[in-house]
Amino acid sequence: MGEKGLADVVAAQTSISDIDGVQGKLWYVGYDIDDLAQSSTFEETVFLLHNLRLPTQEELDGITEALVNDREMTTFGLSLMETLAVQSSPMSMVRTSISAASAHDPDGWDTSPEANYRKALRLTARLPTRIAGYHRMRTKRDVVPPNPKLPHAANFLAMLLGEEPDQDAARALDVCLILHADHTMNASTFAARVCASTLADIHSSSTAAVAALKGPLHGGANEQVMKMLEEIGDPDKAEDYITQRLGQKGARIMGFGHRVYKTEDPRATHLRRLARSLGEGAGDTRWFEISERIEKAVMDQKGLYPNVDFYAASVYRSLGIPTDLFTPVFAASRIAGWTAHIREQYADNRLIRPDSEYIGPADQRYVPIEERTE
Amino acid sequence: MGEKGLADVVAAQTSISDIDGVQGKLWYVGYDIDDLAQSSTFEETVFLLHNLRLPTQEELDGITEALVNDREMTTFGLSLMETLAVQSSPMSMVRTSISAASAHDPDGWDTSPEANYRKALRLTARLPTRIAGYHRMRTKRDVVPPNPKLPHAANFLAMLLGEEPDQDAARALDVCLILHADHTMNASTFAARVCASTLADIHSSSTAAVAALKGPLHGGANEQVMKMLEEIGDPDKAEDYITQRLGQKGARIMGFGHRVYKTEDPRATHLRRLARSLGEGAGDTRWFEISERIEKAVMDQKGLYPNVDFYAASVYRSLGIPTDLFTPVFAASRIAGWTAHIREQYADNRLIRPDSEYIGPADQRYVPIEERTE
Repeated sequence: MGEKGLADVVAAQTSISDIDGVQGKLWYVGYDIDDLAQSSTFEETVFLLHNLRLPTQEELDGITEALVNDREMTTFGLSLMETLAVQSSPMSMVRTSISAASAHDPDGWDTSPEANYRKALRLTARLPTRIAGYHRMRTKRDVVPPNPKLPHAANFLAMLLGEEPDQDAARALDVCLILHADHTMNASTFAARVCASTLADIHSSSTAAVAALKGPLHGGANEQVMKMLEEIGDPDKAEDYITQRLGQKGARIMGFGHRVYKTEDPRATHLRRLARSLGEGAGDTRWFEISERIEKAVMDQKGLYPNVDFYAASVYRSLGIPTDLFTPVFAASRIAGWTAHIREQYADNRLIRPDSEYIGPADQRYVPIEERTE
Repeated sequence: MGEKGLADVVAAQTSISDIDGVQGKLWYVGYDIDDLAQSSTFEETVFLLHNLRLPTQEELDGITEALVNDREMTTFGLSLMETLAVQSSPMSMVRTSISAASAHDPDGWDTSPEANYRKALRLTARLPTRIAGYHRMRTKRDVVPPNPKLPHAANFLAMLLGEEPDQDAARALDVCLILHADHTMNASTFAARVCASTLADIHSSSTAAVAALKGPLHGGANEQVMKMLEEIGDPDKAEDYITQRLGQKGARIMGFGHRVYKTEDPRATHLRRLARSLGEGAGDTRWFEISERIEKAVMDQKGLYPNVDFYAASVYRSLGIPTDLFTPVFAASRIAGWTAHIREQYADNRLIRPDSEYIGPADQRYVPIEERTE
């Protein structure tokens, strides 16, 4: 077989996003991620990923309204959440609640492209409500209902933290949601497309994506970064920590390096800027400073660039998001890309069924159990 | 890019199973599926797939005991099932209940190979209980507790139908469970391995597999076959039905053809035999006869061989399994293979992250919304 992990194997064609790993560029539908981070909103980005063009004002108003109208959980969703809040870890909750939601989607069994678009928007609209509801319930606080007057990102923070965020915080999360919304054939998106290729429904395929994002080698990395920042605790201790860690056999520093980028991940550039400005705004730049020192030490000692997970950690921390919700927040953005890829897979489908190479014993004779020896 | 759907791309190495599509051979760990269907049991097959060798008597007793001891659902599982029985389709129930079960596994966060083996056996032991419990609840009948004196397959039928099956029925389901337990890199197993490659846990990875199996191009096909048999209803009408269907543009007959097999699927051979003998035993060979006529018509007109789904339909029907539970029964077998592949992936892991080929517009200029035209 070729290289493990299907590195460099083209698994699908897509019009949704593209990466140039050498130049450090990321585009959604041909639009530079820098322009989108500068000028777009999450709502507009969702439209772009699903419709492969930017919306007119009327279309943007339409998708914004759809995303507002579908924020509320169902009665069943709320009641399931009360159980999940007691017993499930955050990503298990996201996986289970999206899986369970299929039974209640108003579009039911309809798998037309239009129904799947509505289901995609519903999944996207409601995930922040699930995450915030879970967090409020597990911390024994009142669930905050969605505020239809707030944009998607601002409403997310308001439901999670119980108070309306200021403009800088709301915009910072909005930019985070834009930056994380899609990233070509990453493992969770690929898992979603493998599922969709059996013509499994959009809830099934999204559930598979969440399942893959849960892994520490994928979405779970941002939480590991935050744990490292907390362990270091002081900017002056960062360099020694990194030197010591890199001296250990097989050790890796979470939040650095990427299968595709050979230079700085363009998303890291924006997240570094946000981490600094949010820290300065709050008068507490400790996490940003520790991060900067780590970045320098890892570059000096290993030549590795930070990836999207690295500065996301200090941004999310500055926004007041609990560490164990970092990956669910990632999911709340990536659900836009997942559902766009699922719909793209349906539109021109062939079952994804690769080969395997058998490396076990051949031609074994079945021996009755009484004749077997260990 | 190469051929769509990763056909002929080797995605992983495995010691679990192998296919020779030209000769029509399937092996588990080098043992011919014919020998296993003849002489093995599902319990022994589970041991084989996970340990890559046949058990001694003591080891077989050990795994049988483990599979018996873990049959009971938890209190939470039962209470969730009451809700799912009212509102979820069968495969959504399987997906959601496996996802939710992660919170209650006694091995918790332990991801050692030993803990993952125990979790795998627990998932395998309990899936029949979930399926039977769901069916009893939705049909307003008492839930039948597992009978520790019965083997896995016989107990499954007893819990589902409310009475102990006769020997022939029990052995027929046992053989079905052996035949469906693994099949190299099929879409659901591949989805499971993609998930596992992010180091997502075994419940997450199994949930992704269920999500993929749900699709009509994968596990859902056996239900479509049964619907076709019912639609035809009479052996003498089979040929005309097939002729008419094949005359329609883009029509396909479910249960025929396979990406890998270019001759008869060896599993179909055993299922055909079981379909006949179960029909004869019950004095009702109608489904078998319709199936035989369809097989002949499709071979004459299209040169296609039946696959594993085709005769599975009449076997399951003869066993009294409701049509919409065919795919869950498939899952109750394949969970053995999925969990073995997940553990194999963990043991020598690299993130599965293929490339995609971008085919959308390039270098688009971000235009302010007021300047956009549709």
